[in-house]
Amino acid sequence: MTIQTLAQKLEQSFDEMVSIRRYLHQHPELSFQEVQTAKYIADFYKERGIEVKENVGGNGVVARIKGKFPGKTVALRADFDALPINEETDAPYKSKVPGVMHACGHDGHTATLLVLAKTLNEMKEELSGEYVMIHQHAEEYAPGGAISMIQDGCLEGVDVIFGTHLWSPLECGTISYRKGPIMAAADRFEIKIKGYGGHGAQPHKTKDAIVIASQLVMNLQQIVSRRVDPIDSAVVTVGSFVAENAFNVIADSAKLSGTVRTFNEDVRDFIEEEIDRIVRGTCLAAGCEFEYEYHRGYPAVVNHDEETDFLADCTSQVSDVLHTEIAAPEMGGEDFSYYLQHVKGTFFFTGAKPDDVEIPYPHHHPKFEINEKALLIAAKTLGTAALNYQNVEEQNSVEV
Amino acid sequence: MTIQTLAQKLEQSFDEMVSIRRYLHQHPELSFQEVQTAKYIADFYKERGIEVKENVGGNGVVARIKGKFPGKTVALRADFDALPINEETDAPYKSKVPGVMHACGHDGHTATLLVLAKTLNEMKEELSGEYVMIHQHAEEYAPGGAISMIQDGCLEGVDVIFGTHLWSPLECGTISYRKGPIMAAADRFEIKIKGYGGHGAQPHKTKDAIVIASQLVMNLQQIVSRRVDPIDSAVVTVGSFVAENAFNVIADSAKLSGTVRTFNEDVRDFIEEEIDRIVRGTCLAAGCEFEYEYHRGYPAVVNHDEETDFLADCTSQVSDVLHTEIAAPEMGGEDFSYYLQHVKGTFFFTGAKPDDVEIPYPHHHPKFEINEKALLIAAKTLGTAALNYQNVEEQNSVEV
Amino acid sequence: MTIQTLAQKLEQSFDEMVSIRRYLHQHPELSFQEVQTAKYIADFYKERGIEVKENVGGNGVVARIKGKFPGKTVALRADFDALPINEETDAPYKSKVPGVMHACGHDGHTATLLVLAKTLNEMKEELSGEYVMIHQHAEEYAPGGAISMIQDGCLEGVDVIFGTHLWSPLECGTISYRKGPIMAAADRFEIKIKGYGGHGAQPHKTKDAIVIASQLVMNLQQIVSRRVDPIDSAVVTVGSFVAENAFNVIADSAKLSGTVRTFNEDVRDFIEEEIDRIVRGTCLAAGCEFEYEYHRGYPAVVNHDEETDFLADCTSQVSDVLHTEIAAPEMGGEDFSYYLQHVKGTFFFTGAKPDDVEIPYPHHHPKFEINEKALLIAAKTLGTAALNYQNVEEQNSVEV
Amino acid sequence: MTIQTLAQKLEQSFDEMVSIRRYLHQHPELSFQEVQTAKYIADFYKERGIEVKENVGGNGVVARIKGKFPGKTVALRADFDALPINEETDAPYKSKVPGVMHACGHDGHTATLLVLAKTLNEMKEELSGEYVMIHQHAEEYAPGGAISMIQDGCLEGVDVIFGTHLWSPLECGTISYRKGPIMAAADRFEIKIKGYGGHGAQPHKTKDAIVIASQLVMNLQQIVSRRVDPIDSAVVTVGSFVAENAFNVIADSAKLSGTVRTFNEDVRDFIEEEIDRIVRGTCLAAGCEFEYEYHRGYPAVVNHDEETDFLADCTSQVSDVLHTEIAAPEMGGEDFSYYLQHVKGTFFFTGAKPDDVEIPYPHHHPKFEINEKALLIAAKTLGTAALNYQNVEEQNSVEV
Repeated sequence: MTIQTLAQKLEQSFDEMVSIRRYLHQHPELSFQEVQTAKYIADFYKERGIEVKENVGGNGVVARIKGKFPGKTVALRADFDALPINEETDAPYKSKVPGVMHACGHDGHTATLLVLAKTLNEMKEELSGEYVMIHQHAEEYAPGGAISMIQDGCLEGVDVIFGTHLWSPLECGTISYRKGPIMAAADRFEIKIKGYGGHGAQPHKTKDAIVIASQLVMNLQQIVSRRVDPIDSAVVTVGSFVAENAFNVIADSAKLSGTVRTFNEDVRDFIEEEIDRIVRGTCLAAGCEFEYEYHRGYPAVVNHDEETDFLADCTSQVSDVLHTEIAAPEMGGEDFSYYLQHVKGTFFFTGAKPDDVEIPYPHHHPKFEINEKALLIAAKTLGTAALNYQNVEEQNSVEV
Repeated sequence: MTIQTLAQKLEQSFDEMVSIRRYLHQHPELSFQEVQTAKYIADFYKERGIEVKENVGGNGVVARIKGKFPGKTVALRADFDALPINEETDAPYKSKVPGVMHACGHDGHTATLLVLAKTLNEMKEELSGEYVMIHQHAEEYAPGGAISMIQDGCLEGVDVIFGTHLWSPLECGTISYRKGPIMAAADRFEIKIKGYGGHGAQPHKTKDAIVIASQLVMNLQQIVSRRVDPIDSAVVTVGSFVAENAFNVIADSAKLSGTVRTFNEDVRDFIEEEIDRIVRGTCLAAGCEFEYEYHRGYPAVVNHDEETDFLADCTSQVSDVLHTEIAAPEMGGEDFSYYLQHVKGTFFFTGAKPDDVEIPYPHHHPKFEINEKALLIAAKTLGTAALNYQNVEEQNSVEV
Repeated sequence: MTIQTLAQKLEQSFDEMVSIRRYLHQHPELSFQEVQTAKYIADFYKERGIEVKENVGGNGVVARIKGKFPGKTVALRADFDALPINEETDAPYKSKVPGVMHACGHDGHTATLLVLAKTLNEMKEELSGEYVMIHQHAEEYAPGGAISMIQDGCLEGVDVIFGTHLWSPLECGTISYRKGPIMAAADRFEIKIKGYGGHGAQPHKTKDAIVIASQLVMNLQQIVSRRVDPIDSAVVTVGSFVAENAFNVIADSAKLSGTVRTFNEDVRDFIEEEIDRIVRGTCLAAGCEFEYEYHRGYPAVVNHDEETDFLADCTSQVSDVLHTEIAAPEMGGEDFSYYLQHVKGTFFFTGAKPDDVEIPYPHHHPKFEINEKALLIAAKTLGTAALNYQNVEEQNSVEV
Repeated sequence: MTIQTLAQKLEQSFDEMVSIRRYLHQHPELSFQEVQTAKYIADFYKERGIEVKENVGGNGVVARIKGKFPGKTVALRADFDALPINEETDAPYKSKVPGVMHACGHDGHTATLLVLAKTLNEMKEELSGEYVMIHQHAEEYAPGGAISMIQDGCLEGVDVIFGTHLWSPLECGTISYRKGPIMAAADRFEIKIKGYGGHGAQPHKTKDAIVIASQLVMNLQQIVSRRVDPIDSAVVTVGSFVAENAFNVIADSAKLSGTVRTFNEDVRDFIEEEIDRIVRGTCLAAGCEFEYEYHRGYPAVVNHDEETDFLADCTSQVSDVLHTEIAAPEMGGEDFSYYLQHVKGTFFFTGAKPDDVEIPYPHHHPKFEINEKALLIAAKTLGTAALNYQNVEEQNSVEV
């Protein structure tokens, strides 16, 4: 009964959801600078008399809604920062801030969660348990907002957390979930080969940084091809190689930077060390110096098995979900990973491909668009999971 | 007798030589823009009533001095362009043109040849033969001035040509000569690897231009290590490697540029073709496209054997020449090579290391300096060779 | 009830099972030469009046047991060939054939299936459906026995197939299963680099096959590191590199052979083509010829989802199964794959680690041993699955 | 006058020279086993009453002929060992020893020197100075016979040494000489990569010796391409690469062996160290162990300038010398190098191409042949040099 009520109420609020999303879309703010957006969110709760805490771990906002009856505490998370991209769409609600754009759908996440929160609040007399709305700032830029919000208590008392990403490559009406790793750890490395430059006709007086760095690039291929278990997924990419000189000199130095993607912390640690060893060995062979830095980004998003099965089951109660599928792990990163290191839960994708589009613009593209109908589906799915979770029997498992 | 007279007269004109050199040093002009310098040179001849031709193949200037008696026609060449370098010396005669500097000694070459010409002109009643003073513009910048001056007739009737380079790494008092190749052919190549870029976490959707280009750099090493006769000298240098991107993308393209140095035209042709084949093979293996351009610079300066022996013999008559040695071939280029493709002759180095300097600044350095005493030695050596050549018996060799 | 009966009867026959296994262990026969083993198996059935067909697709033996009541037809498969390995254990039932050994557990597979068959036959008055015992020859040696047995009709009328491998790395009492790919496609490639040999001091007169082949090995690394989706598992191994010569020559040719492991036919096709392209490109770059052969081994064993879930459920009824787990895909090959291309089913691992052994000898090792208790567990699990499958509702799924 | 006499006498002994050569050709002995050949040589001298010393530094034989008048002491050297090659020619004087052959012309060297010695002995009443005939054993096999013969005094009192090699690639009638390095230092290296083997499908459990060794081969290319002065000649060849395994394993180890050729001791030292560093670096990067051995062969044969000029001048007095040329340095080795480290001298090539042959079989080939006319030319040239050297004015140069 309650689930049906929730669905109906959300449907009635669909226009509001769209309207909020479009407002946010017009007023995007960069990671760690989302002051107005945070105020907008907080005001939404204040206007409705909902308990809200501002400046949680930075610009984060957390609202709590208590049902009348005792029960579990369920957290739902939406992020709200935008990207340093200049919007190139023709939308009437196009970004009003030059060079800043909601090109990843966080505007939609926020609209979804606000309207879902409003609805749960309206239903609270019938509800058990407590609902924690985590409005997270700064997902797009490491170290991200999740860590500081957790340190600032946003997960206090929380039994489970759910989150979703509107996903434009997936048809609207699809929910895609996965037990275990669903998004990769995304790290960055910087390597500087410090050779010794000179005249292009006198290689013997130099240490040719381009040859050394090229050899390093070749050697790095072996990490994935030979050293990581073929069953584990891993990527080592050198994305940038810069040794810009006149054609007739020998390069003094070369700068490489790249990314490592993994789903498993052991593999991640291993690759960080392997790169170090390969750089050291390559430079020893070449008799040159180097600098090597490895910067950890977000860890992998590792969904909990039972909560993922639970979420998958919930989708059968959401009439707009026409199709579910098991997600292939995405090599991209998300700081939702940190929440799942503290509490059980799952992160899933909500199909948001625009109608009448063969190949949608990818996330982070200046022409990125989402299907606004997906906001309703996301809201219903998150809401259904939140309410159903009150009925989940206590797990005996000791481990998380 | 004549040689002694020449030497004495040159010694008496040493101050003039220095003065001319310093004037030119203060008024440097870039390659192909040497209008004032050319006028300065031409005026020098006109003032002395010497036959001079201007605008030879561009800014080139050619003067001809005929001895009273019939004889051979000997050409002497000096180049007069400067470099796009901002002088950093404290010399009182420092360049007055910001960003332009005689950092290679061409000012000295010109002063040497002018004063030598004046002296020969003064002695012409005693002399046999004819003396062609080739003042060449644009040596520093391909395609150089030599080709066009030759096309414009500067070598007409010439039997032999001599040229020298003031050479700061060599002690003043040293003449360094070499039969056969003394300076390398210097070519340039440009390669663009046209991969297919994408997200750093999705290598399978891309063709990683950095990996392909790195492999290419490694493969190119084999040209020198395996394919060129170890007895031949060759250099293949990739001087620039540019694929500048964010760390978390995969490079769409990579640009390489480099230089090839050879002393032998067959090796030069071979390397041009080998690079082509290696690029094609590497890109075939990677399934990507490419662009490849090979630009020929000056050919190798290949001295003629007998004229080199002749020049070496002449040095014994120049008292200031304290030491002679056989030059190691230099991998750098010079367009004197073109003259030697048309007439016999030789190109040699005149030691010009400044006094009291342990390690002189190299040519093309903002603090480059020469020892002005070397101008006199160069003038005497060139003059001695020019006059002595009148006594060389006719060679029977058919080939040049 | 029936399941309990089956279990009790199997327990009572445990000694027989062990005895059969030890007999077979003492009399191993190589792949495609298993004449006596096949006769032993056929005789077992004949003695018990069970319908048996010999020489199925070679040395294969197929027995069929019909229950009294109509039902589904369930196939169970056990392989029975041995390996060209000289046994080094101290077992009292050690191989009596020098150089041939049951070092992979197929003796146990056969004993398991024979005793299970006998038991089902004894119970046939209570049973529904039909049970097809596929005793397969030649699993160890491509092209294997499965293909020809299928062509010879062993799957006629079969609704589902189950098979297991006794697995010494897994604790006895464990059943390990997996939906989808559980064992990899295992292919072989041979590459000959045809360079041009010569004197070690004259590289320019040769095409150095060692350098070319080394470069090829490096280039092949990129297939896994860059070209296969990181989510897919793949291995490209060059296992042998032979260019044996005196130290002072340059190699005329180099022979590489290796293996490719994949779980996905598209990836498999892709890698076969990529190796071809990389070999062609590398040899084009080197200006040499080559030979390349790619030999397909068994395809991946791809378990059917529902049958795997079904099997996993069945294990809860087998009291000796103390633990179940989801198998990591094994990169090794199995020709059980062919059965699963024709009918639904699943292949799983039955833990068979010897007691009191920290690290068991691996399969194919001269000291390989299994825990004979595992035979009983395998028999119970296969038998339970076979009987329970009679109760499975008809699937509506059109696709297999 | 004397030179003419010498020439005439040698011409008269040509048949003897040929006959000796053919006898030796039929009775070849391997390096360090040349007992009969040494006896043959010693007997030749004894029969003619010439002072001869046997067992000089092994199987070496040294004869001394004193002219009537005081003068300089001139050494002439011929080697006399054969090769482990099975002769495949149809010569009537084909080797009578299976598997052993004079396939390098040392039979000719010996015949030349014996007949020259006999002739000088006949002329000794007219001659000044002393003539030392060094018949060296074991040139083909390191450490060679030269070192021990020198230690045993063969160069005592010697002022100058001359030696020649009959050279089948050169036209008969040609003498090829060169100042400075004429034959390379020839060294050997052995590298064992100690990886960690395993199953071909499990690279992560191994250290793939084939990939590591392949990378090493690629890295070694940079020694010649980038680290040695392009003006210096050097060769680094990996001649053998062995990692022979089944296709489906990962190699535990790989053995490389190769050769290094250089003309300059500094370059030689440098390369030995560079290989070491590259091996260490490559293995560090791969986390594996290795073995590396570098074995020095003969040093480069470095001719002395004045003695080479002197020899070249002498050829003008040898009527059979139709052509002289400056040799390109040969990358092959010769232990004549050791003599030149102790006394002045020069080593040259005497053209010995068989008549009517387009492309002669190379030295060390089972069908190798020389033009016997070359023996006479070699004898005349060596003899002329020996006699003329008595007229060389004392050099003042302190250094050798």
